[in-house]
Amino acid sequence: MNRITMKLNADELIMMALREDISSEDVTTNSVMPEATPGEVDLICKQDGIICGMEVYKRVFELLDEKTEVEAYVKDGDAVKAGQLMAKVKGDIRVLLSGERVALNYLQRMSGIASYTHEVVQLLSGSKTVLLDTRKTTPNMRIFEKYAVTCGGGQNHRYNLSDGILLKDNHIGAAGSITKAIEMAKAYAPFVRKIEIETETLDQVREAVEAGADIIMLDNMDVDTMKEAVRIIDGRAQTECSGNVTRENIHNIIASGVDFVSSGALTHSAPILDISMKNLHAVHA
Amino acid sequence: MNRITMKLNADELIMMALREDISSEDVTTNSVMPEATPGEVDLICKQDGIICGMEVYKRVFELLDEKTEVEAYVKDGDAVKAGQLMAKVKGDIRVLLSGERVALNYLQRMSGIASYTHEVVQLLSGSKTVLLDTRKTTPNMRIFEKYAVTCGGGQNHRYNLSDGILLKDNHIGAAGSITKAIEMAKAYAPFVRKIEIETETLDQVREAVEAGADIIMLDNMDVDTMKEAVRIIDGRAQTECSGNVTRENIHNIIASGVDFVSSGALTHSAPILDISMKNLHAVHA
Amino acid sequence: MNRITMKLNADELIMMALREDISSEDVTTNSVMPEATPGEVDLICKQDGIICGMEVYKRVFELLDEKTEVEAYVKDGDAVKAGQLMAKVKGDIRVLLSGERVALNYLQRMSGIASYTHEVVQLLSGSKTVLLDTRKTTPNMRIFEKYAVTCGGGQNHRYNLSDGILLKDNHIGAAGSITKAIEMAKAYAPFVRKIEIETETLDQVREAVEAGADIIMLDNMDVDTMKEAVRIIDGRAQTECSGNVTRENIHNIIASGVDFVSSGALTHSAPILDISMKNLHAVHA
Amino acid sequence: MNRITMKLNADELIMMALREDISSEDVTTNSVMPEATPGEVDLICKQDGIICGMEVYKRVFELLDEKTEVEAYVKDGDAVKAGQLMAKVKGDIRVLLSGERVALNYLQRMSGIASYTHEVVQLLSGSKTVLLDTRKTTPNMRIFEKYAVTCGGGQNHRYNLSDGILLKDNHIGAAGSITKAIEMAKAYAPFVRKIEIETETLDQVREAVEAGADIIMLDNMDVDTMKEAVRIIDGRAQTECSGNVTRENIHNIIASGVDFVSSGALTHSAPILDISMKNLHAVHA
Amino acid sequence: MNRITMKLNADELIMMALREDISSEDVTTNSVMPEATPGEVDLICKQDGIICGMEVYKRVFELLDEKTEVEAYVKDGDAVKAGQLMAKVKGDIRVLLSGERVALNYLQRMSGIASYTHEVVQLLSGSKTVLLDTRKTTPNMRIFEKYAVTCGGGQNHRYNLSDGILLKDNHIGAAGSITKAIEMAKAYAPFVRKIEIETETLDQVREAVEAGADIIMLDNMDVDTMKEAVRIIDGRAQTECSGNVTRENIHNIIASGVDFVSSGALTHSAPILDISMKNLHAVHA
Amino acid sequence: MNRITMKLNADELIMMALREDISSEDVTTNSVMPEATPGEVDLICKQDGIICGMEVYKRVFELLDEKTEVEAYVKDGDAVKAGQLMAKVKGDIRVLLSGERVALNYLQRMSGIASYTHEVVQLLSGSKTVLLDTRKTTPNMRIFEKYAVTCGGGQNHRYNLSDGILLKDNHIGAAGSITKAIEMAKAYAPFVRKIEIETETLDQVREAVEAGADIIMLDNMDVDTMKEAVRIIDGRAQTECSGNVTRENIHNIIASGVDFVSSGALTHSAPILDISMKNLHAVHA
Repeated sequence: MNRITMKLNADELIMMALREDISSEDVTTNSVMPEATPGEVDLICKQDGIICGMEVYKRVFELLDEKTEVEAYVKDGDAVKAGQLMAKVKGDIRVLLSGERVALNYLQRMSGIASYTHEVVQLLSGSKTVLLDTRKTTPNMRIFEKYAVTCGGGQNHRYNLSDGILLKDNHIGAAGSITKAIEMAKAYAPFVRKIEIETETLDQVREAVEAGADIIMLDNMDVDTMKEAVRIIDGRAQTECSGNVTRENIHNIIASGVDFVSSGALTHSAPILDISMKNLHAVHA
Repeated sequence: MNRITMKLNADELIMMALREDISSEDVTTNSVMPEATPGEVDLICKQDGIICGMEVYKRVFELLDEKTEVEAYVKDGDAVKAGQLMAKVKGDIRVLLSGERVALNYLQRMSGIASYTHEVVQLLSGSKTVLLDTRKTTPNMRIFEKYAVTCGGGQNHRYNLSDGILLKDNHIGAAGSITKAIEMAKAYAPFVRKIEIETETLDQVREAVEAGADIIMLDNMDVDTMKEAVRIIDGRAQTECSGNVTRENIHNIIASGVDFVSSGALTHSAPILDISMKNLHAVHA
Repeated sequence: MNRITMKLNADELIMMALREDISSEDVTTNSVMPEATPGEVDLICKQDGIICGMEVYKRVFELLDEKTEVEAYVKDGDAVKAGQLMAKVKGDIRVLLSGERVALNYLQRMSGIASYTHEVVQLLSGSKTVLLDTRKTTPNMRIFEKYAVTCGGGQNHRYNLSDGILLKDNHIGAAGSITKAIEMAKAYAPFVRKIEIETETLDQVREAVEAGADIIMLDNMDVDTMKEAVRIIDGRAQTECSGNVTRENIHNIIASGVDFVSSGALTHSAPILDISMKNLHAVHA
Repeated sequence: MNRITMKLNADELIMMALREDISSEDVTTNSVMPEATPGEVDLICKQDGIICGMEVYKRVFELLDEKTEVEAYVKDGDAVKAGQLMAKVKGDIRVLLSGERVALNYLQRMSGIASYTHEVVQLLSGSKTVLLDTRKTTPNMRIFEKYAVTCGGGQNHRYNLSDGILLKDNHIGAAGSITKAIEMAKAYAPFVRKIEIETETLDQVREAVEAGADIIMLDNMDVDTMKEAVRIIDGRAQTECSGNVTRENIHNIIASGVDFVSSGALTHSAPILDISMKNLHAVHA
Repeated sequence: MNRITMKLNADELIMMALREDISSEDVTTNSVMPEATPGEVDLICKQDGIICGMEVYKRVFELLDEKTEVEAYVKDGDAVKAGQLMAKVKGDIRVLLSGERVALNYLQRMSGIASYTHEVVQLLSGSKTVLLDTRKTTPNMRIFEKYAVTCGGGQNHRYNLSDGILLKDNHIGAAGSITKAIEMAKAYAPFVRKIEIETETLDQVREAVEAGADIIMLDNMDVDTMKEAVRIIDGRAQTECSGNVTRENIHNIIASGVDFVSSGALTHSAPILDISMKNLHAVHA
Repeated sequence: MNRITMKLNADELIMMALREDISSEDVTTNSVMPEATPGEVDLICKQDGIICGMEVYKRVFELLDEKTEVEAYVKDGDAVKAGQLMAKVKGDIRVLLSGERVALNYLQRMSGIASYTHEVVQLLSGSKTVLLDTRKTTPNMRIFEKYAVTCGGGQNHRYNLSDGILLKDNHIGAAGSITKAIEMAKAYAPFVRKIEIETETLDQVREAVEAGADIIMLDNMDVDTMKEAVRIIDGRAQTECSGNVTRENIHNIIASGVDFVSSGALTHSAPILDISMKNLHAVHA
């Protein structure tokens, strides 16, 4: 996550998360440590996986105290092993203690998503099908979670309702037809938007491609119908199917020849990657 | 979640989540529906579980348009079955479409946590041990996630660093001893705070209970040591062990006789409960 | 501007504008009107033009007092004539006086942009070339100004740096070549983004179209070169030229056959449309 | 614009403008420049005019990255010539690209207002009449636009409804008479406020001056009536007329002998001054 | 406090105060009252004084629940007696309990200031000297505290550093002389600002009045010097002395003939007026 | 007040207070000092007392200009004497002048509370009774005022409604009985909360202690009843009485043997401690 994105679109969320955890003060730490004490702590991975969120982890401590230093030995997207030392954090021990939980809450969740995404990407390896995320992200975590998907090797679908067009059955119904819906979207939307439309039958696929859709979603089709749809479209639009990617159905998805497969589970159901801070000790300044 | 909590501490987060998903406008919906159209949609559960977040779900639509009505057939904490109709939502179809994703993102996650908590609570049933959450919540989701734990039958540990004291090894180290740490906390903290302290040995347990700790955490002890610790404490303090509760270790936890067991997984790794909105259709006003 | 966009993305800006104008209280009005007095005022156009911002105008008064009523006789996009009565506003006279300036500041500026856009669109009429805006909007006014362009008959280019890709010479330089830049953008960006690239020579045009650009900007080309570029591209990408559209150069732009022409002046240099509130008088409740 | 004003009252608006333009990330730049690269760019004026907003321009880049350096060769209020190099900006090229548009949007608009104000001030030169702005500013731009007027040689009228009193016909009507309105304002308002009142006839002028008005606005009077009003007032109050200042009517305004003339066009209809950033290139650190 | 001021400039502060007191939820109330229960409570004064803040008191409950009704029997500025029933509040008992403290914290403090101001105003009664407040207000309470001063019969000095000019010794020193300081202020400041200047000697008074100061502050002068200063000024400027107004020094202040006396104690040291909510009971809806 | 608390929970309030005082710019200072000028000023105490708020005082200037330096000779909690030099502040004179009032408004109020608290603590000296504050703090000042109480030697009661439980008569009424109320609170609240309950009779005291209350408030009891209550409780719960602590009643409170006495006056009615900034002068850089 680059510095500009962090300052404009992550800092405020991180500050809010810190205030959520420290609504007045860290009573425990302040009870026993009235004065700043320089210290150091290790960041250690407790599971194998793909790391993601190192810059966010660092930023939590910087926002509490700009003098905190994080010496990182891994970077976002790297594979890590259980037991691996990933970073050392140096600064006022009170800062290390007060920021620990929020920093890990971000790092563990982002790494969990990257790790899970990476596993699914492995299932698709060798095929031309690209894995996509969805808008099924945790509220107020999208900037972090979509980034984590890319660190795990996936690609992002639209960021939100404002920057991508996806005409679903209700939109088509309101417009009157697939052709009419695509026309209305072309007339209304900023011209830089690609237009995606959901189809459930081969007739719909034909109408969509004729009407100039940029992306055609193949919804709830069996593998043979998907293959036929891809054949009909013949490169005139990109193709996407949605749904879970599992060891069981992966062969069918690849076989269908679709360009993209999107999966909500990447962001809504990935378990965290277990990471902890250990060996906190005072250092002589 | 009651109305006061919602207005003071949830509304702003929900508005932010809506702006995260609609940074300028819902281009797709606005392309095809230039005017308000009254409609109705069903909220249907796709998995068995415990529902949580109905008021938040409703609030998302209210914040977009105060005229939206949600007729709910279930309430937070209720068990639901796959296929069950949980609510009908009536209002401008554009509002139903623009708010759908954010409303479901909250509802699915909160219900996922309640459902998972409920499963763990079942494992403890018959024992006197109470299940607790932790501060391992998703950033900016704590107000929702801690509430979901209670809907699943768990109890809340401290809300954050400001409203509970937990003296860990580093705090004890800074103070000099367990006794000194407890004394410092009693002198510094608001007198309404219970004081909890982490112990790893029976000697530490003895020192903690003598020094007047209100809660003693038994950290990384085997079942026999825990039993002995509970015997030593003898009701003079409450006892907590932390860690995952699984079918495998549940017997030991119960057998140890601890009052509380806390689990980070409740909030950091519960998968969502699958819920969807179906059968959207126009209605005559 | 629909109600959802207003609540999510305009209300906060309007409130800020009101606080900018009333940092403590409206001293003048409060000096002479200690109590609420029902009144009515006319909204009258003083110049011919295209009206835009009626919902924003109305919202200013609603945010001050939800009981204010605006009876509008025109809607956004309508042509209006000098002297035309456009609306009557009824409510507490103190609200009408305290909100007048902010309400008009929005309405006049939005109508100014719509009117100026409409004039330029007229110059293009009969051709297939579509008029676009740019990101040269007034800071914190984009949601209003881009909407005003559409009311005047123009179409929107990308909303901001996050929802559209435009590879300029510096981006191409950093990537190494046009082909490499397009590849990198395809690999990095959400797959729903169209990729636009700037070209200055016919060789660059050829490379861009081969590399799969979705939109090709023809920068600083004379009319014959533009014609040749359009011929080379041959419908494989959309084409855009940028710059002022004036009576003098309009023939050339149309003749070139480009799909789109973008103009910063629409938003950065349109004068306001003169509108005022007149005939304020008390009414008997 | 001094540093304190910037930090307290401009920074937040600038950050909002940056987030308006980068709602998630700068996709184009991040696609092709994964790492920071030191670079330099020239700020060049493309039209003659008065420059204004250099500190704001600089602040945009500082807020994105505090290490960006702006070496300025002109300062606010200076006359600039087309082609003139006004500054060099050094920093991470990604910062220069991501901040360019917002920085220029401020600088061009502020310079446009300063330039236009300067032209009008020239028309008044040799007379004692001082040019004033109004509250007809762009929403959420007042702090920048009022400052720009002073850089162009104008003076500011009241900042907003809270810091100046202007009793218009409706206020006078509510109070009952000019005398009563002035009395009520003196009793209610902080005693540091000057009291200004609108008059349309010489009788009103006489009543206002007797009642102790500090400033008398002469509204819609012909030149002879204005002269007579000024004669009647005879220095016992300051005088202001409002309306456009043009080559045609300038003689009359000066001849009338009023102290001040206010013009809404300074802020609501000044076209921008054309300025651009050129010659971006990498530098060796 | 009128409704517009409340919505624009008080609501946000009141919401913050409520969040300060309810950072997650009202645990006590929610423990014992899971459902809404209609109830009623009396607002009773426990000391004699001047009441102020009734609209703010009401607003606290409205912001928690728009259905809460406050039936008020007194209004701001009224004298109240110990034991007097001032209002009845009806609504969900949970709202009454959760909002009580914040509502009273505002009401008691505002009434304390109004009461104390009223006492001082009594000391000045019969004289022409007007009592003023200062900027020595509690941070983030100015909008409430300055209003309370007016309810107690005082008048407001400048609201803040932006809306009034007061040239003190350091400003005069920076300018070079009193005359120069006044000239610079006239050239720089919006022309609607009165210019006040601090003087310590009669020579300074003479210079100030010649230079055209609108208000002259007589700082640390004995009563005879003040009298002489007032004589010198002779109505050409308004006069202010600052400092505490006590039974002991009141004769001198009045005797000096100054127009205004300002007192920081009105806002920084007034004790609260004791007010409480009693007799809460459920009612049948 | 430590740095983390400051950054998370005080900075935003301080910035708001600065914007309250400088809504556009400091007109006076900017009139006469167009350029930065290095200077120095003394912070001098004008009354004996306990100082509190030195870090907040310093932070005000840092937030205006990070280069301002405060050399402090006293720290929070220190006793100070009238005339004592407490600090020297060095920086741009414009910063010193523009920040002075807000910095002093915080410092004087916090020191006033610390000083008054200290006086009351003196009255209790020699006894085991500890002095507590309440939630009767100034809105949006709690973080500062509760801290000031501790600097004066008092201890904090609960911070707000979310972090402490206090079952009052209305809560008990809603629950049905003291026993039931305590049971409901134990079931509902996070288990780290102590449970406090209000009692008015000895029977209530007996019921509360049996039901397991952690803290028992003795409300409106005479000294003999309080003694008996303390005897009954016999260390099984902590005891608190509330109300003013005066020279007159102090003997009774101590004699009663209660553990804690809480006083609202500490925060709602302490007068400020008079402190000023003197001897501002330019220095050579």
